[in-house]
Amino acid sequence: MSDRMSLVLFSGTVDKLMAASIMATGAAAMDVKVEIFLTTWGITAFRKGAYLTNTAVTKDYEEYGPLMLEAMQAKHVPTWMENLQAAREIGDVRIEACSMTMELYGLTLADLEPIVDDVTGVATFIERAKDSKITLFI
Amino acid sequence: MSDRMSLVLFSGTVDKLMAASIMATGAAAMDVKVEIFLTTWGITAFRKGAYLTNTAVTKDYEEYGPLMLEAMQAKHVPTWMENLQAAREIGDVRIEACSMTMELYGLTLADLEPIVDDVTGVATFIERAKDSKITLFI
Amino acid sequence: MSDRMSLVLFSGTVDKLMAASIMATGAAAMDVKVEIFLTTWGITAFRKGAYLTNTAVTKDYEEYGPLMLEAMQAKHVPTWMENLQAAREIGDVRIEACSMTMELYGLTLADLEPIVDDVTGVATFIERAKDSKITLFI
Repeated sequence: MSDRMSLVLFSGTVDKLMAASIMATGAAAMDVKVEIFLTTWGITAFRKGAYLTNTAVTKDYEEYGPLMLEAMQAKHVPTWMENLQAAREIGDVRIEACSMTMELYGLTLADLEPIVDDVTGVATFIERAKDSKITLFI
Repeated sequence: MSDRMSLVLFSGTVDKLMAASIMATGAAAMDVKVEIFLTTWGITAFRKGAYLTNTAVTKDYEEYGPLMLEAMQAKHVPTWMENLQAAREIGDVRIEACSMTMELYGLTLADLEPIVDDVTGVATFIERAKDSKITLFI
Repeated sequence: MSDRMSLVLFSGTVDKLMAASIMATGAAAMDVKVEIFLTTWGITAFRKGAYLTNTAVTKDYEEYGPLMLEAMQAKHVPTWMENLQAAREIGDVRIEACSMTMELYGLTLADLEPIVDDVTGVATFIERAKDSKITLFI
């Protein structure tokens, strides 16, 4: 059985999405299975079309946000969505949305970007996280 | 020995408290022991009575906060405190406050909600986290 | 082989730096190897001289920030930088900066505080995190 990394993606700001996507890409390239469990604002970030206009960075560094986004564009850094797509092409990467959050906002899988594989419960997440070498809350 | 999940609860906003409490409930239901180590703003959230008036959500999504809290009320979603109480009824869930933060603010266990079991040091947290299948910083 | 703790230090606010440094100190004292992988705002916090003037705390609790910093000074609590220096004296603590972030901002190791050991890629981080008993995203 290959190693596994589980990420709880609670945040929806571009800086944290970028960090999560880079770790997913790195893990996939190393043959580590990746499970991303979207919850709360992580789900907001994966609503259909949202990634096209999302330029939010953490409020803690809000003033540096435009600088970061400009540097990324100038250096042709792939976006977090492109990173996740690349990670899925090279490795085993699943993205699932927390059923409780989905229910709270009356959302279904069809409301999210097609990169999201499924809607699952917290029990499934915990079951998989127990067998993961790395588990992070982002 | 049953599996264990360790959470460092650094944050004190309702959205993160909710995420932590749902994972605690899920783990407890699956017979996974839960240790919650409160530090910094996590301690602020457990000061006596604070949960009754805490409506803060992360500043990153401040504008969606009222919407989230309304949706929770409309759907009769249990509060994070109710989740934690339920988790303790069905499983083995301990909540402990970081002694360094407590000392910094001149607080004692009596200043916190009765759901907090004890005040402990970071060494104890690390000792337990080492034996945990899942450890998250929230 | 001794146990290992891996921290992804994404944030650069004093409250989170303090939490990370206290866990590093605790782990080092318990003979647990510590790897700190700086990324995004974590790198900003380690730019030369930045720690001398950094008084930022998370925006979620911005209004309590001055109170926290005053309490720390009044009680002569060591700063997070002093904690990290102490941790390195008593244990095996490595601090490395994410090469992708460094490249994005055109930074080299010479631009960071001397406490940073090296610049490394995410693959190295994941390789080490896989062998860590505790891995946290801060």
